[in-house]
Amino acid sequence: MNSEIIGIIAGAFSCTTFLPQVIKTWKSKSTKDVSLTMFLIATLGTTLWLIYGIMIDSFSIIATNIVVLVFSITMLYLIFANREKRNTHTDNAEL
Amino acid sequence: MNSEIIGIIAGAFSCTTFLPQVIKTWKSKSTKDVSLTMFLIATLGTTLWLIYGIMIDSFSIIATNIVVLVFSITMLYLIFANREKRNTHTDNAEL
Repeated sequence: MNSEIIGIIAGAFSCTTFLPQVIKTWKSKSTKDVSLTMFLIATLGTTLWLIYGIMIDSFSIIATNIVVLVFSITMLYLIFANREKRNTHTDNAEL
Repeated sequence: MNSEIIGIIAGAFSCTTFLPQVIKTWKSKSTKDVSLTMFLIATLGTTLWLIYGIMIDSFSIIATNIVVLVFSITMLYLIFANREKRNTHTDNAEL
């Protein structure tokens, strides 16, 4: 079996790994149990995999990591937006 | 620059991506905001990447995905253990 076929299926799974978390967090707006460090590391790691994919000319690695990078950055945004909101709420509560 | 050096650094990041979440969940025992689907997809995707890595003979892909697989399975265990515990608590509360 062609390795690139396995790579593309693996890529399809990896592409969507963070999607359920993005949807869950988007709906609940709650990130208390979610690790910020996980998504910081994911963003850095994904950027490096993208460079690696370009260097070894692997389409499946390049495509996967572009999508994962978008979801990682979305999760970072949601975590920070939620913290900001939580802080504002706390400030209001203290008034 | 050798692509395998980038691959190994990328792998080091990916290896540790789920570790902060494992530590956070291990300590808090709270998984309310964490997506189970994310770790189910991660486990399947990582298994496929492992097969891909073996097929294209990429050490960095193989090594990374073994470690990520261990953390993904650990997170699945923690999520299910926590649900089990939460259900038991609910049962007790209902008694």
